[in-house]
Amino acid sequence: MKILLIGANGTIGSAIDNELSPRHEIVRIGRHSGDVQVDISDSASIRALFEKTGRFDALVCAAGNVTFAPLGDMTEDSFALGLKDKLMGQVNLLLIGREFANDGASFTFTTGVLSHDPIKSGASAALVNGALDSFVRAAAIELPGLRVNSVSPNVLLEAMDKYAPYFRGYKPVPAADVALAYAKSVEGLQTGQTFHVG
Amino acid sequence: MKILLIGANGTIGSAIDNELSPRHEIVRIGRHSGDVQVDISDSASIRALFEKTGRFDALVCAAGNVTFAPLGDMTEDSFALGLKDKLMGQVNLLLIGREFANDGASFTFTTGVLSHDPIKSGASAALVNGALDSFVRAAAIELPGLRVNSVSPNVLLEAMDKYAPYFRGYKPVPAADVALAYAKSVEGLQTGQTFHVG
Repeated sequence: MKILLIGANGTIGSAIDNELSPRHEIVRIGRHSGDVQVDISDSASIRALFEKTGRFDALVCAAGNVTFAPLGDMTEDSFALGLKDKLMGQVNLLLIGREFANDGASFTFTTGVLSHDPIKSGASAALVNGALDSFVRAAAIELPGLRVNSVSPNVLLEAMDKYAPYFRGYKPVPAADVALAYAKSVEGLQTGQTFHVG
Repeated sequence: MKILLIGANGTIGSAIDNELSPRHEIVRIGRHSGDVQVDISDSASIRALFEKTGRFDALVCAAGNVTFAPLGDMTEDSFALGLKDKLMGQVNLLLIGREFANDGASFTFTTGVLSHDPIKSGASAALVNGALDSFVRAAAIELPGLRVNSVSPNVLLEAMDKYAPYFRGYKPVPAADVALAYAKSVEGLQTGQTFHVG
């Protein structure tokens, strides 16, 4: 398969690359790195990406930004980044990317544990993750010949150096285990699912 | 209690009014009807609302618009109404309303069954409902002295005249039953919950 991997340079993206590259052609995509660049918060940049990559068999997005801040400090503006980047960025990858998707192609998006197991400062992440998990369930029934899933990982083992104080009591999961869920989505046949890891 | 009821004139809002008005003071709020008006998609209008109503013990929102359209016809713009109105409208009611909330006050928002049991044309509704159910879970742990829940109803019995063709196989629920969930949220002590009805 020809797989577009957005966020290929990140911790999860690198693990997905390791998991899938022995069996598939990977196009590595990043905001500033990779074979091709995209800013997923900009739908014109997304369209330009697909015009460069051409048709594909699977798109995996392991990228997306949200604002982390205590709820007491948040205003409407604090939610804008998450809505525009991690949420509508991934939705737009599907809305635009379906034109470039081969028959049977799949989309796999990244959400996360905070949708249902929240932490301080995680309100925007929770909102965005919950939105995407529900979008995937709904969009799947209106995508004849295509599939869409999300992967919802716990905090990554590789991120605990930086994030441990925010995730006390969470059992971190190795990125290599998270990558398996992307392989299940890409190489299996399920659709409309959220694969929880950890 | 002094309860601000947004969407008081709607099918669910009227049922909530019937359920709660025998025991509480209800301020009836609508976009064009009611004692006071608000456009929840406009944060300035939300702030003006609270400046008129003054402090309150419970806020219930049974209002919020999204776009219904087949996924194949949807673009980024098709999601804008839901993000600005039903989603960020309700989030902003909390972000702004907390300044006007008495100790122990509650917020109760409206989501719906489409987050997890989707229909054709329901992708934006699903996204928004899932976002709010997760937001409520996350926001509740960062709201000392305040509470927040959502009510997620099935299709309403009273709406089946119009909506039956879109909801074949769904078991409709009377608005009076849905209203009980709002009473549980307002008059009980739970927080961070989504009350599913039907």
